[in-house]
Amino acid sequence: MTEFELISRLKPLLPRTPLVVHGAGDDCAVLSAPLPGNELLFKTDAVVEGFHFLADTEPERVGRKALARCLSDIAAMGGTPTAAVVTLGLPPGYNPDRVEGIYRGLRALAEAHDVAIVGGETTTNPDRLLISISLLGTVAAGRAVLRTGARPGDALFVTGELGGSIHGHHLDFEPRLREGRWLAGSGMIHSMIDVSDGLAGDLPHLLGSGAPGEPVIGAELLKSAIPIRRAARLGARSSDSAKPPIVAALTDGEDFELLFTVAPRDAVDILDGWRSAFPDVPLACIGKITDRPGIWLCGEDGMRPMIGKGYEHFR
Amino acid sequence: MTEFELISRLKPLLPRTPLVVHGAGDDCAVLSAPLPGNELLFKTDAVVEGFHFLADTEPERVGRKALARCLSDIAAMGGTPTAAVVTLGLPPGYNPDRVEGIYRGLRALAEAHDVAIVGGETTTNPDRLLISISLLGTVAAGRAVLRTGARPGDALFVTGELGGSIHGHHLDFEPRLREGRWLAGSGMIHSMIDVSDGLAGDLPHLLGSGAPGEPVIGAELLKSAIPIRRAARLGARSSDSAKPPIVAALTDGEDFELLFTVAPRDAVDILDGWRSAFPDVPLACIGKITDRPGIWLCGEDGMRPMIGKGYEHFR
Repeated sequence: MTEFELISRLKPLLPRTPLVVHGAGDDCAVLSAPLPGNELLFKTDAVVEGFHFLADTEPERVGRKALARCLSDIAAMGGTPTAAVVTLGLPPGYNPDRVEGIYRGLRALAEAHDVAIVGGETTTNPDRLLISISLLGTVAAGRAVLRTGARPGDALFVTGELGGSIHGHHLDFEPRLREGRWLAGSGMIHSMIDVSDGLAGDLPHLLGSGAPGEPVIGAELLKSAIPIRRAARLGARSSDSAKPPIVAALTDGEDFELLFTVAPRDAVDILDGWRSAFPDVPLACIGKITDRPGIWLCGEDGMRPMIGKGYEHFR
Repeated sequence: MTEFELISRLKPLLPRTPLVVHGAGDDCAVLSAPLPGNELLFKTDAVVEGFHFLADTEPERVGRKALARCLSDIAAMGGTPTAAVVTLGLPPGYNPDRVEGIYRGLRALAEAHDVAIVGGETTTNPDRLLISISLLGTVAAGRAVLRTGARPGDALFVTGELGGSIHGHHLDFEPRLREGRWLAGSGMIHSMIDVSDGLAGDLPHLLGSGAPGEPVIGAELLKSAIPIRRAARLGARSSDSAKPPIVAALTDGEDFELLFTVAPRDAVDILDGWRSAFPDVPLACIGKITDRPGIWLCGEDGMRPMIGKGYEHFR
C-alpha cells in the first residue's frame, strides 16, 4: 500500500467541525480563528510502541490514548480543544488494518469532544510505530490556568485516583476536560497541571523553578489523604518486589488527573461545588503549599522528605 | 542527562515573538488569536534519520530542514507562519550536543521568519532520531490558495529549479514564503502546491481527485521549459545508471518549489511582476492545464504520456 492509498483510506475517518474551512488534503489545513476574546492553546505529544503501548495493544486504544494525552494538557489549562493533526511513523510492511484501527480510536474520542482532525503525515519509522499529535484549543483571554501561581498556604487538590495506571487506566482514562473548564471558570484556581509523570514527578512543577522572581516553595502531603487506585493496591500484592501502594500512587506515571491549588479560604467552596458538578469523580485535598522548599510526606511515622521522583524518560 | 535537564538546556534556544502569551514550559502554550479577518493555517511534518537526513548530517542543517519543510507548506497557501511546536524522538544515549545543534538550526530559521517555538516534547525512539514539527500560520480569510482550482487552459508555472536535491538543496533550500504571499496577493493564482515529492508526484494533486464535482483534468508539459538544477545535470554524468537530467527534474523529491496555475491572460503579468519582485528567483512557465486527463510531455519526439511518479514513501 502506498502512502497515497493509505491516506485515501484514512481520510474518511477524520472528523470535521464547523471550525474547519479546509480540512486534510491540502498543503495546510485552514481553520476559522477563535472567537474574539479568546486565545489559542497549542500542544504536541507523542506515543511510541514499546513505551506507551505494546505491539499487541488494541489499535483503537492506542489511537485513543495518543489523543487523550493531549486533551489532558488542554484540560490542565482550563481550555477547550478544537483541532488536531496526526503524524504516524510507520515501519515498512505495516498492517493497514492496524493503522485504520488507530484512526478509529482517534476519531471516536475526537468526536466525543468536538475535535476536528485536520491533517496528518505518514512517514517511515523503520523499527516501531510512533504517533505524534499536535492539538489546538481555545481559552478565554487571560484565563488559562498556569503551573505557576501557587502560594504558601494554598490547599493542594487532586482529581480521581493515582497509581497502577499500567493495568489499563493509561489507555482508557477520560481526559478531565469538563472538570478543567469548571475549575478554571471558578476563578479560584491558583495553579494547575495534569499528572502525567507521577504526583512526585509533577508536583515540583507547581513549586517554582527558582528563576528570578519565582521563589522555590514546597508542599506537605498528607499520606492518608492520597487517593490510591485499586489497581495500585492489587499490583502491590502481586509480588514481593512490587511497589507499596502509596509509592505507586506517588511515582507511577500516566494518571492524567488534575493537580491544582486554591487559597485555603476557597477550599471548602471548591469541594462543595465539585461534588454537585461531578458527583462521580473523586476530588481529594491531599496537602498544602508551604514556604519551606521540598516535598514532605506526613504519616504515622512523622514528617519525612519525599525520596524519589515520578517517572522520567531516559533515566 | 534526564529529560528535564535536556529541556532546561534547550529552552533558552526557543525564539519568542509578541504573539506568545505563555511559551514552552506549561501544559500548553498560550498564543494571541490571529487579527480579525484572518484564518489559521495548521500543518505537521516529520523527518527521520536515514530517510530525510543521515546520522552524520550536521545537526544545524537537520533542524533547519525539519522546520523549512513546514514553512514551505505555509508558503504554498500564501500564508505567514507564526508558531511551531517540536517533538524529538531520541535514542537512549543520544548526544545532547547534537540535539542542541538541531535546536540552533531550528532557531536560526525560525528567527529569520518571525516564527516562535512555543513548546515541544522529547520522547524515546530507540533506533533513530525523528523530528516532528507542527506549525501554525495565518492567512487573510478566504485568501488561502488551494490545490484545487486549476482550470483547463491555465498556464502552469514553477519557481526555481528541479531535480538533484539530494546533493544539498534538500537541506539548505529557502522556503518560498515571500514568493507565496506575493503570488496569493496578486489575486491571480488559481491553484498552488509546493513540490516536495517531485513534479511528477505533485502535479497530479492539481489535476482533480475525480471526486463528485471535481472532474479530473490533465496537463501538458513542455520538456524544454522545465528548469533543471545544475546538481541534476552533474548527477546524471556521475554514473551510467543515473537518471537523465529531465527524469531527475520530474521525479526527484524535495525541491520545495512552488507549482501554480493562472489563467492564460494573466501569465505575462505574473511573469513581469515576478521579475521585478524577485529578480534572483527563476520562474518558468512549463506547460498548461488541459481537458484531457493525464500528464503529457511534449518534446522533440512528440507528445508522450508521462511514465513514473515522483517519490512515494513505502514503495
